[in-house]
Amino acid sequence: MGKTLAINAGSSSLKWQLYAMPEETVIAKGIFERIGLPESISTTKFGGESHTRKQNIVDHRQAVLLLMDELIHFNLIKEFREITGIGHRVVAGGEFFKSSTVITPEVLEEIKNLSILAPLHNPANVLGIEAFQRLLPDTLAVAVFDTAFHTTLPEKAYRYPIPTKYYSDYSIRKYGAHGTSHMYVSQEAAKFLGRPIEDLKLITAHIGNGASITAIDGGKSIDTSMGFTPLAGVMMGTRSGEMDASVIPYMLESDPSLRTAQDVIDVLNNKSGVLGVSDLSSDMRDLQAAKEQGNPKAILAYEMYVDRIKKFIAQYFGVLNGADAVIFTAGVGENDTDVRRDVVNGLSWFGMELDETKNVRGVFGEISMPDSKVKVLVIPTNEELVIARDVEIAKQNK
Amino acid sequence: MGKTLAINAGSSSLKWQLYAMPEETVIAKGIFERIGLPESISTTKFGGESHTRKQNIVDHRQAVLLLMDELIHFNLIKEFREITGIGHRVVAGGEFFKSSTVITPEVLEEIKNLSILAPLHNPANVLGIEAFQRLLPDTLAVAVFDTAFHTTLPEKAYRYPIPTKYYSDYSIRKYGAHGTSHMYVSQEAAKFLGRPIEDLKLITAHIGNGASITAIDGGKSIDTSMGFTPLAGVMMGTRSGEMDASVIPYMLESDPSLRTAQDVIDVLNNKSGVLGVSDLSSDMRDLQAAKEQGNPKAILAYEMYVDRIKKFIAQYFGVLNGADAVIFTAGVGENDTDVRRDVVNGLSWFGMELDETKNVRGVFGEISMPDSKVKVLVIPTNEELVIARDVEIAKQNK
Repeated sequence: MGKTLAINAGSSSLKWQLYAMPEETVIAKGIFERIGLPESISTTKFGGESHTRKQNIVDHRQAVLLLMDELIHFNLIKEFREITGIGHRVVAGGEFFKSSTVITPEVLEEIKNLSILAPLHNPANVLGIEAFQRLLPDTLAVAVFDTAFHTTLPEKAYRYPIPTKYYSDYSIRKYGAHGTSHMYVSQEAAKFLGRPIEDLKLITAHIGNGASITAIDGGKSIDTSMGFTPLAGVMMGTRSGEMDASVIPYMLESDPSLRTAQDVIDVLNNKSGVLGVSDLSSDMRDLQAAKEQGNPKAILAYEMYVDRIKKFIAQYFGVLNGADAVIFTAGVGENDTDVRRDVVNGLSWFGMELDETKNVRGVFGEISMPDSKVKVLVIPTNEELVIARDVEIAKQNK
Repeated sequence: MGKTLAINAGSSSLKWQLYAMPEETVIAKGIFERIGLPESISTTKFGGESHTRKQNIVDHRQAVLLLMDELIHFNLIKEFREITGIGHRVVAGGEFFKSSTVITPEVLEEIKNLSILAPLHNPANVLGIEAFQRLLPDTLAVAVFDTAFHTTLPEKAYRYPIPTKYYSDYSIRKYGAHGTSHMYVSQEAAKFLGRPIEDLKLITAHIGNGASITAIDGGKSIDTSMGFTPLAGVMMGTRSGEMDASVIPYMLESDPSLRTAQDVIDVLNNKSGVLGVSDLSSDMRDLQAAKEQGNPKAILAYEMYVDRIKKFIAQYFGVLNGADAVIFTAGVGENDTDVRRDVVNGLSWFGMELDETKNVRGVFGEISMPDSKVKVLVIPTNEELVIARDVEIAKQNK
């Protein structure tokens, strides 16, 4: 009972959703952007209204203060203690956190230690946790890990073919990402198909600006395309995905503007993918527009993008030795009908037959023909709901 | 008409085969090892005999002199001019060489320039070419490129999702390798199946100490697992294959024995793969023996090895949108019955059904059941024969 906040803190942002639980109703949601930068922006949405404010916000602590003020101001809560739980998205849980965990001082310390695996994300997640701890020190707080769903990967999938010591001494292995999303849409898909998830082999394609594809056997992740970091796997908005590692020293030697291996990785993370090949934009909507105008670089970027998604889906048909359904989710997966069409038609041999009339923007559910051997579904993701649900479970276990 | 030498020169080795052409009969073959090192070894085999000699050989030129002496000594040729053509394997042909090419001074210069793409291999190949040029300056010499067969890759497959300038200015793209082997076994497979190669979709798995897998549509390579260099793709004897590139700076920061990005790549090339995970050996025969004794690291290495091969074969079913046959070749592919069994059985959903009674060491031809939807073949590779044939074509065009 009570209200739950689902929090996703970035280095200069704080996204939130306020839920009435256990009804799972979204009361309000919003985002603080440009925290610590000039002209911070906060947006609050509820009941059809949207309020945007520009003001300097120096840190996450101030953002949380402003958030609580707004919740009172807009009469979304009457007093702070109506909020009975806070769930925080944490990107890297390493091998330690196999499920969502109530945040104690020891847990927070461990999340900080794991920053080595997600140097951009975990410290930002910690900022969010600490900001709420100061204002609401007695409220139940739960860490929900992006990696937890992938801790079921078998060793053959998570280990890299490199000397053992890099795993045993330096923790280099595949951790994956988008775990809450893959878990959520696979469970929703099982409901939609009316079959127990234990009996299903599913391939989930979370395709947004970041993208990852997961092979799920009986509800358990058994392989996923992101790796040690979210750079690996399919081609993304600004990320290369899979590369020949030999390219790194070669880029370093060839391009005088690059000075360290990390500089190269920064290029692969921030200037590559759709942006790097199209020389235009990391946004698939921009790419589609340019493609339709016949822009050759946009056409190439699009073909490569579809090619890499097809390869990973096909690969996971191999890992699962067949699949019952392929599920598209996230920004591109939910809305880009061209990508879905070209991926599914390009894999028709696998027993997927698209129903063109159902393949529309923002559809929910099946987009394959009734007799398609392998079902193709679109399920909108909802990572915040998973966070709120995990907080609810922790409330009940308290 | 006449005799043709097929040459494969490494930095301290020179492998050769002497063919009677156009009969395609192997008259003799051999190898010089440890060239430039103490106690060089030369081995010559013909007509059931094998001769090994230890003597210091200072350079490739001396090796070629000794080779010609031996050919006369063993009465394999009576005079040098019986050799009417020499074919040289060249690893990197870049985008320039789309087929085998008669070696002129300009061609040799270009092969040297391409050393930037294969710094270990092309300079060694050049040593072999120049050694023969000095001794047999007037004999037709042909360069046969490992990459030529893959020059048919579509741009979406050969480009990396990185900023365009790294392709346009620095030639960073997928080149692939083992091209002569993939070409040869795909053509032999078409003959075996009694169907024109133009009508076939084939997946060739060249699995030796180095390994690559290729998707071949109508006789043309349309994707292949090796990349800019032979580091990419499946897990190999000592090479990692596919990696999250972010691991490179992380290894560099973590391991004090590594000083440059190239040091990391050297680990990925020489100390990884089966060797790195098993802590034992890069040789699959050693691994199989240790696996049977229950060695857990050997079991893990084997499971990873099979997993990566399965993923690439499945992926190329996606690229081709279905395949008629999967072909195994090279040391492991021709001889390791466990690897073939576990790969094929692990992909049974794809319509491959193994005939266990046919899956024996050194088999030639089909190892799938007669009604297997997708055929599984074992075809021994013969890169030297491709080289000799390409020399023969050049002789006829002279």
